[in-house]
Amino acid sequence: MMIVRRTRVITNIISRRVNSNCFTTSSSTISSSPILKFPSSLLSLDLPEIWPPSSPAVTNCCTANDQPSAALVIDGKLIADEIRFRIAEQVRRMKDSVGKVPGLAVILVGDRRDSLTYVRNKVIACEDAGIKSLVTQFPQNCNQDDVIRALSNFNEDPSIHGILVQLPLPQHLNEEKILSALKLEKDVDGFHPLNMGNLAMRGREPLFIPCTPKGCIELLIRSSVEIMGKNAVVIGRSNIVGLPTSLLLQRHHATVTILHALTKNPEQITREADIVVTASGVPNLVRGNWLKPGAVVIDVGTFPVEDPSCENGYRLIGDVCYEEASKVASAITPVPGGVGPMTIAMLLSNTLDSAKRAYDFT
Amino acid sequence: MMIVRRTRVITNIISRRVNSNCFTTSSSTISSSPILKFPSSLLSLDLPEIWPPSSPAVTNCCTANDQPSAALVIDGKLIADEIRFRIAEQVRRMKDSVGKVPGLAVILVGDRRDSLTYVRNKVIACEDAGIKSLVTQFPQNCNQDDVIRALSNFNEDPSIHGILVQLPLPQHLNEEKILSALKLEKDVDGFHPLNMGNLAMRGREPLFIPCTPKGCIELLIRSSVEIMGKNAVVIGRSNIVGLPTSLLLQRHHATVTILHALTKNPEQITREADIVVTASGVPNLVRGNWLKPGAVVIDVGTFPVEDPSCENGYRLIGDVCYEEASKVASAITPVPGGVGPMTIAMLLSNTLDSAKRAYDFT
Repeated sequence: MMIVRRTRVITNIISRRVNSNCFTTSSSTISSSPILKFPSSLLSLDLPEIWPPSSPAVTNCCTANDQPSAALVIDGKLIADEIRFRIAEQVRRMKDSVGKVPGLAVILVGDRRDSLTYVRNKVIACEDAGIKSLVTQFPQNCNQDDVIRALSNFNEDPSIHGILVQLPLPQHLNEEKILSALKLEKDVDGFHPLNMGNLAMRGREPLFIPCTPKGCIELLIRSSVEIMGKNAVVIGRSNIVGLPTSLLLQRHHATVTILHALTKNPEQITREADIVVTASGVPNLVRGNWLKPGAVVIDVGTFPVEDPSCENGYRLIGDVCYEEASKVASAITPVPGGVGPMTIAMLLSNTLDSAKRAYDFT
Repeated sequence: MMIVRRTRVITNIISRRVNSNCFTTSSSTISSSPILKFPSSLLSLDLPEIWPPSSPAVTNCCTANDQPSAALVIDGKLIADEIRFRIAEQVRRMKDSVGKVPGLAVILVGDRRDSLTYVRNKVIACEDAGIKSLVTQFPQNCNQDDVIRALSNFNEDPSIHGILVQLPLPQHLNEEKILSALKLEKDVDGFHPLNMGNLAMRGREPLFIPCTPKGCIELLIRSSVEIMGKNAVVIGRSNIVGLPTSLLLQRHHATVTILHALTKNPEQITREADIVVTASGVPNLVRGNWLKPGAVVIDVGTFPVEDPSCENGYRLIGDVCYEEASKVASAITPVPGGVGPMTIAMLLSNTLDSAKRAYDFT
């Protein structure tokens, strides 16, 4: 079933706040010395993921002309609602059959406004689906051992089938160490390296697919977008979105190219793509002229921009200059209402899957 | 230092045996149903990696004209020898300092001629470098538990720092189960999914980089080929070569595209690449007109072709139609003498690294 609605041309006012602070130059250089001299040179080339100032992004976005939008809008909200409805059905069936419901535990550190909002939304979604949820909140300056102790308790709690640590954590906490303490069978975010390795390797299967990438592929499949044999470009290579999305697209037999901040002429490469999934962290990076006519665009970016005309004083935009892109693409996800709702739906789906495994329930 | 020699034009006689059995059509089709209906549809799309018959490979290769070869030949044999010499030095230093040498154990099942040759070469390379080696050979029809028991013994043996299971294993053995029994700290082949996940993820480091991909990158670095910001194409997506090579190139900040048997117009994509690493399993797949002038070509393929003029009655060719490619590329690895010798050198390097970790020796 193709769930779509026609785009509307919305005047796109990008605030100066967003325009001004996105681009700085990376001056790092890379040693090209052989491994036996500098063993780490073969691996540890971590550079900050900063897109270059030569990128034509953001400045002069909203150059949309009067041409009508050609793209069908992939309605993530509607698709996510349908999935959540079906999850709720299955949770009821599980309760009737084995007398148990899935349980999700969330570890939240500090009081970042965005994290609080995300966690609240997850808790509400759990309630709606009949999934039990528990939130353990720590103060910003908490002790790492206390966080790990809470995690270990959830690891041992048989009524908890999924545990997630709301990221980002405060600087003084070791994210890798904390996430490693999480029991693999309850890693519903799918961020454990063993899980990622199993996602990457042919013939292996991960226990969980990370939620946002899973949501992106689900949107493509539910919108009847063919993936096999298509050229797909993933913009951004984060562990949370870019990497697992590229691995998942490849499992579906797309020919995948991963773009990042050090890619030269990214727009030239995206123009060859049938499918563009973008999670660059740069608002309005992808312009209309970055796209091949008829491409399918999945926009993972979410950035608040000041807008006095909105109730909260701000509104959300994505990685894609929507007004331009929707005149070139054949299908596109809006921001908000595209990938965002799918991420939560997939979290519920992973938690349900985990509970099914625990109770051997099908 | 750039270690190169000029190419020579060699008459390339591809035997009919190789020409005739490479291409069949895959008739599989893929369901595009949503995950909640068919959970496995999001992951388990395993198809045989069969390149389509429309590919212009193999047939009519050797159309090289009289134009001289332009490419510099990356001499893998010479580079590998240099690396092995330095490994031997370090092994001697370790012996003098801590009274120990690295140890490599090989599990070999059956009597495949190619496997026997590979294992023999590895054993000789160990001896040359002063690394202790042990080979445990099982008959073709052996019991899986016996193989795992031998593995477990090596896992516990403190004089063994690297263990490898020579692949492929006979059909009746469960490769995944056997490889999973291997202690992560001794997985010098780097094939464990946890290792692969750590290779894939930003901010993480694997204990070992798989040998052939590590050899490919080493060849590029030692030949002063810039990787950062370059367009790299990896042909083939095996767990052993294609996947880890693509992950490693990305760590070096190339913009990586992975081609496979379901890629449409692969030659169009390779023509945009500055670096082509090919491990497709198809002899002479990559023709001269697949390459951008000046591209760097790393050929991982190795296929024996009948050649009565050779001492053994056969010679080796690669994935790349060498005569054509060497007139277009700026640098190219030969087959044999390119990637092959590097794989063994990297196995020694991984075994040495493992022993260094075990003895806290730098």
